Amino acid sequence: MSTLFGDKLAIVNLGLASFADAAHTQGADVIHPEWQPPAAGERDTGLALASLFQHPKVEAANQQAYTAYLASQPAWVGMDRALAAIPGMGARMILHSGPPIAWGEMCGPVQGAIIGAILFEGWADSPAAARTLAQSGEIAFEPCQHHHTVGPMGGIISPSMPVFVVCDSEHGHLTFSNMNEGLGKVLRFGAYSDDVLERLAWMRDELAPVLGLAIASVGGIELKPLMAQALHMGDEVHNRNAAATGLLLKKLVPAILRLDIDAELKARAIEFVSANDHFFLNLSMAACKAMLVAAEGIPGSSMVTAMGRNGVEFGIRLSGTGDTWFTAPAPVVHGLFFSGYSADDAAPDLGDSVITETAGVGGFAMAASPAIVRFVGGAASDALAHSLAMREITLGQNPAFTLPALDFAGTAAGIDARKVVDTGIMPVINTGIAHKEAGVGQVGAGITHAPAECFHQALRALAATIAD
Amino acid sequence: MSTLFGDKLAIVNLGLASFADAAHTQGADVIHPEWQPPAAGERDTGLALASLFQHPKVEAANQQAYTAYLASQPAWVGMDRALAAIPGMGARMILHSGPPIAWGEMCGPVQGAIIGAILFEGWADSPAAARTLAQSGEIAFEPCQHHHTVGPMGGIISPSMPVFVVCDSEHGHLTFSNMNEGLGKVLRFGAYSDDVLERLAWMRDELAPVLGLAIASVGGIELKPLMAQALHMGDEVHNRNAAATGLLLKKLVPAILRLDIDAELKARAIEFVSANDHFFLNLSMAACKAMLVAAEGIPGSSMVTAMGRNGVEFGIRLSGTGDTWFTAPAPVVHGLFFSGYSADDAAPDLGDSVITETAGVGGFAMAASPAIVRFVGGAASDALAHSLAMREITLGQNPAFTLPALDFAGTAAGIDARKVVDTGIMPVINTGIAHKEAGVGQVGAGITHAPAECFHQALRALAATIAD
Repeated sequence: MSTLFGDKLAIVNLGLASFADAAHTQGADVIHPEWQPPAAGERDTGLALASLFQHPKVEAANQQAYTAYLASQPAWVGMDRALAAIPGMGARMILHSGPPIAWGEMCGPVQGAIIGAILFEGWADSPAAARTLAQSGEIAFEPCQHHHTVGPMGGIISPSMPVFVVCDSEHGHLTFSNMNEGLGKVLRFGAYSDDVLERLAWMRDELAPVLGLAIASVGGIELKPLMAQALHMGDEVHNRNAAATGLLLKKLVPAILRLDIDAELKARAIEFVSANDHFFLNLSMAACKAMLVAAEGIPGSSMVTAMGRNGVEFGIRLSGTGDTWFTAPAPVVHGLFFSGYSADDAAPDLGDSVITETAGVGGFAMAASPAIVRFVGGAASDALAHSLAMREITLGQNPAFTLPALDFAGTAAGIDARKVVDTGIMPVINTGIAHKEAGVGQVGAGITHAPAECFHQALRALAATIAD
Repeated sequence: MSTLFGDKLAIVNLGLASFADAAHTQGADVIHPEWQPPAAGERDTGLALASLFQHPKVEAANQQAYTAYLASQPAWVGMDRALAAIPGMGARMILHSGPPIAWGEMCGPVQGAIIGAILFEGWADSPAAARTLAQSGEIAFEPCQHHHTVGPMGGIISPSMPVFVVCDSEHGHLTFSNMNEGLGKVLRFGAYSDDVLERLAWMRDELAPVLGLAIASVGGIELKPLMAQALHMGDEVHNRNAAATGLLLKKLVPAILRLDIDAELKARAIEFVSANDHFFLNLSMAACKAMLVAAEGIPGSSMVTAMGRNGVEFGIRLSGTGDTWFTAPAPVVHGLFFSGYSADDAAPDLGDSVITETAGVGGFAMAASPAIVRFVGGAASDALAHSLAMREITLGQNPAFTLPALDFAGTAAGIDARKVVDTGIMPVINTGIAHKEAGVGQVGAGITHAPAECFHQALRALAATIAD
């Protein structure tokens, strides 16, 4: 004791910084690490975390899930109509993004897109009649992700819409996404004017068949190598797909050119894809969904296999907890707004495109895409920092997706809900921001994080499935 | 004095590090900055540097030259045959890369490419006869850059070869480059086998006319915006042109599709461009040449307006010293060699492609292209360091070419020979490495630096033009 009081103290302070300040003013050397209690100090979640920490069943299950994710080999193999292609799709069903939600609870852009889909299907002949039908309960609304399907923003897919068909050749399952319409007034932001519906009809009647013939003629296009190459060309394949779309075009164009169809059909298809730098996004999403479907359903696994937002709630699923969604209010997105818009105009976080982050690209791969900070805000160093931070909450680094700016390290992938709850580091998401009202369109883009509460719920549910 | 001997010494040591070591062992605090005498300690060059340092005429001339460089707006406006398009091109003339050189002095790849060009023109019917003709003195050999023309590697351009025509709409001058043949056995590395000559004939007879029609139909393609976009997609538009070629294709393909020509011609042209990620290089070079021609001929200016290598000598020109080349032996390139090759196989630094670095891209813009270190060696941090170091020897940062990883700072541009001589920092070049024997092709890629001696000579010559 005499030594203790005689020597100069070297203090490590955890928690309240004011304790460190007090010691510091007394002349002591104080180290104050950035620290917060695991599970944000919540007792039940903390106990669940403790029970799952280094649990051999969880470790083995995660290894199995992560290995399956890594092994996935998604390829774009064709085009089809949603009703014919998507398992469980109904003739009077409309799919939407995120976790389940009833018509009356949906946000403006999603309701608008549903009105558009009803008009597109010819189930009603006016927006008012479409709204009445949507309210009537005669249309089934189900999440895309209940059907191995993903859709950006509203994610609205109705039976006659064309969908990308992606096949994981390693595991044999199929995943689906709708086709990207471009920017401006488009269905996924809730627009349903005549020009929107006419474009959708052209995509169904002309574009999708041309692309289907082209894909058939080349026997499919492997998506992971294309995404990997795009990561070396400034894309993160969520909000930046300029390189990926260009690489896709390089494969599509020669195939389209050799089709035995009218030259004008070829030119219009190529020009449409060429004019939309986001065209690849929906294929990126379907590929990511395929990788994550591969990791689903491993009892005990704390790996996150789905995230999605319906504009009201953010939901996640774990491999070890099956089809259950764990939800919390959808967060706001902090970012850059287009001229004339502000945070007051923004809908909460929306869409299934966060499936890209779930698979280790998007915000997780921002180190590949310093240019995206001009779109979502921040500095180039932030892009690196996001990719590095995600290593703290993931099962590994995907060697298929390397990041040049981090000396070709693989992107952090396989979100471990335990690590999220333990560290308090939430999965980073970069995303477009929709106007809160139907049909206005995109008003900005930015960065947000998955809500902690989803992971707390999920971890408690997972712990309940594990016998000590 | 008593204070000096009584106090502890704080020493700044310049030059020999051993002096600092000695003081350090005596317990003194020593700062040893990285420093070397200006002009590498050479008296005459040092005096020239001193006479030009902050000289109002040089400052004003550099401002004028740099402003003209920045203002240049090069566009690809058409295709033509070399003899018809290039001013001063002769019917029995062959252009080569770098500064002037006689047949007998040329390196293997350049001699091989000239033999190929003679066969291609039909001036001889065997390689042996072509060599005899080349030795005879009946063919004029002149540098590409004497004719506003640039060619990668050997840079061999003969009268009937097709060339890109680039027009600087701001200043009205034209620049030219040949077309990129792809990798492997190609003329620019000195190959002249039948397949090489057949490809060149196809490019002349079919590809160039198709591209010429396409360009005419769109009224030209602006090159600076395309290069700027590629810099945001992982290219540095010297050794990496994957994104730029893709962006070019997006403009070319719709134009080609609408041409009233046979579908197979369209398909072959698009497939050739699509299959060669280096296709854009020659357009990048012609665009860079256009920007630098704009800065030529300003009396007193120490801005470097040309660099080039003929495989034996490296040469530079300054704006203020007109057409004079200042040369030194071409350096070796340090880099990564393809499987089966080593530094023993390498030709010295070769080609006019260093015009890209002269214009502030290529090695100067490596911060845009971390993925290129897999091709030229080094780590991602080296790519950033090269771009930062070049700020020390340039007149400014080009706002048209921004580097996302450096928070969108403009690339360092406008090499000031005074700053090169003062700092001893030499312009960095990333470049392909040719086999020293004709026709083997590319054996690697790497990093080198322009030789200091060129800048010393140039600065002494510039000083002689300036009246104090």
